[in-house]
Amino acid sequence: MTQSSARLTAIYRVTDAPRNIAARALAIAVEQSVEMPVAAITSRMVLDDIVGRVDDIADLGNGVFEVRIGLAVATTGLEAGQLLNMLFGNTSMHPDVVLHDVELPGDVLVAFGGPRHGIAGLRTMVGAGNRALTCSALKPQGLPPEGLAAIAAQMARGGLDFIKDDHGIADQAYSPFAARVPVIAEAVAKTGARTVYLPSLSGHLEQMRRQIAIVRAAGLKGVLIAPMIAGLATFHQLVKDNPDIAFMGHPAMAGSGQIAPPLLFGKLFRLLGADAVVFANHGGRFGYTPATCQALAQTALASWGGLKPSIPVPAGGMTLARVPEMLQFYGKDVMLLIGGDLLSAGDRMADEAAKFQQAVLN
Amino acid sequence: MTQSSARLTAIYRVTDAPRNIAARALAIAVEQSVEMPVAAITSRMVLDDIVGRVDDIADLGNGVFEVRIGLAVATTGLEAGQLLNMLFGNTSMHPDVVLHDVELPGDVLVAFGGPRHGIAGLRTMVGAGNRALTCSALKPQGLPPEGLAAIAAQMARGGLDFIKDDHGIADQAYSPFAARVPVIAEAVAKTGARTVYLPSLSGHLEQMRRQIAIVRAAGLKGVLIAPMIAGLATFHQLVKDNPDIAFMGHPAMAGSGQIAPPLLFGKLFRLLGADAVVFANHGGRFGYTPATCQALAQTALASWGGLKPSIPVPAGGMTLARVPEMLQFYGKDVMLLIGGDLLSAGDRMADEAAKFQQAVLN
Repeated sequence: MTQSSARLTAIYRVTDAPRNIAARALAIAVEQSVEMPVAAITSRMVLDDIVGRVDDIADLGNGVFEVRIGLAVATTGLEAGQLLNMLFGNTSMHPDVVLHDVELPGDVLVAFGGPRHGIAGLRTMVGAGNRALTCSALKPQGLPPEGLAAIAAQMARGGLDFIKDDHGIADQAYSPFAARVPVIAEAVAKTGARTVYLPSLSGHLEQMRRQIAIVRAAGLKGVLIAPMIAGLATFHQLVKDNPDIAFMGHPAMAGSGQIAPPLLFGKLFRLLGADAVVFANHGGRFGYTPATCQALAQTALASWGGLKPSIPVPAGGMTLARVPEMLQFYGKDVMLLIGGDLLSAGDRMADEAAKFQQAVLN
Repeated sequence: MTQSSARLTAIYRVTDAPRNIAARALAIAVEQSVEMPVAAITSRMVLDDIVGRVDDIADLGNGVFEVRIGLAVATTGLEAGQLLNMLFGNTSMHPDVVLHDVELPGDVLVAFGGPRHGIAGLRTMVGAGNRALTCSALKPQGLPPEGLAAIAAQMARGGLDFIKDDHGIADQAYSPFAARVPVIAEAVAKTGARTVYLPSLSGHLEQMRRQIAIVRAAGLKGVLIAPMIAGLATFHQLVKDNPDIAFMGHPAMAGSGQIAPPLLFGKLFRLLGADAVVFANHGGRFGYTPATCQALAQTALASWGGLKPSIPVPAGGMTLARVPEMLQFYGKDVMLLIGGDLLSAGDRMADEAAKFQQAVLN
């Protein structure tokens, strides 16, 4: 077990003047631990084992410094929401600080547990060999269950590996979760394809548990969740309670980079159990650079204390035309997600889906 | 009831070139609703009632445009997490877009319900007349329950209205919630003061419900919660289930302004039931400007469809010396929160707390 004095390392990128950076680093160490004047602390244990510690400051140039701070593992209570709170809770309000990376002791990784399926598990689930996986998104929200089911059936007939609800599809009056999920699941099953349908969870823990019960009753094996909306603690509890269910993490409310995307998707979502992490691919509707995407995918896949990898799912305006380039960029350990471009095919959707699937089989 | 075609208005501040802004506004309207090519949508109902609508674009100068977008209320399912998802889920990933404000139909306000106590309720709770309220924070985390209780007793002896746990105090091994809360509550009660102690909730809905049961058993009347960590749906459910408990919202993970602070604290937290909203006062450890703080306080207090106000709680490095200036700046409808400056007083903490309390009684 982790010693009571064990530390994790939070790595911040801070934009400040060289003359300020030492005091600034110390201020962050205090803010993210005891959040009070250290001189007023009389407890030896708190001073030794709880107050954050500046381990290193490196000048990265252009006014940016990398600050490494040792935070007491004990302050996290090994609880997901509190981990985020200790890493970045108050400091997230400083516009000149990015939470760049985190290094966690091995037993902390084991305690949170990471993905229960990982890439190998997802491939087994859809009967895929060592190849890239495919996914599409059911849209638009507003359609009744039957309308979405008809689209899902076309995508399944094309042989796609996964179909996820659009993250905007929740539990709305025009298509309630309890009515929608069984109808779509049945439509997909009837095609005879191995396609796995991932319904989108929404609300709080109790509501999501009811939704997962519906998912199970419909014979489904996975779900979509937006951890930054649900709350990390809620996400992690669902993963722990449902080790046989695959979890795809959606980036809604991930923000524009104040938590570095490789850390947020490749480490934090993975740590808590995301088997697949959807993120904004470069050259689509969002602004991540190729370097950010590369780093994100590498982090999600890297060896990390025995945790299973999360499969990167680059998305956000992807097209069939980009598939060869994306396969070259990401290799085989990737799930390609194409939504709108397939939906635009209308009656030819099954054919277009088949073309998409064929592209990863070759 | 809200018509199925009812709209809410999301107001974004977008930095872009004048020649791009029309297309950009349309892209946001689509991203935050159907998230697919509109030309591929065949359902008349979806086109008419679900697809986001650009209502107005105003040039604010300096390359910033204010874009008003009508989003279908039906897409929110009147659920707090999904409301945030529809307002900003994917668009939060665009660094050049700020969610600036939201206008909600009256029946949506009623459905979410707002603060259950508001300023009048909090004043009644502590026996205060028409005056500013006081609050301090229990720190440092790492102390055992008895250590925190001794500090709380000193603050209560000084006559403070409220004492909250530091938001870093969660459910850690060195001071578990179930062990800490009754001990601190008893220490405060023994002083005979009317001081209300607000323990900090952490984890997910089930864990927070257990914590609230402990709060009730200890005879306490309120709690602290960080809605952006807990998840808005979790926060809102707790408010609905516990109308007799006062909720103070903490800004951890509020980020550095991509959701405008007046909106986040003064409207969204208030909508879901925060009786008090802690935020970073100008001139402290964080970077909000006086204008932002003024706008935040005014928004939290403004007349808004019959919802009770949330009391603004400016904080983050405040001192006794600043009390007169803060009272002048915010007026009487404010709760002043001073943490570290009181804690630094050591043995004189009760006297310093009394001075703080006296300053708002005059």
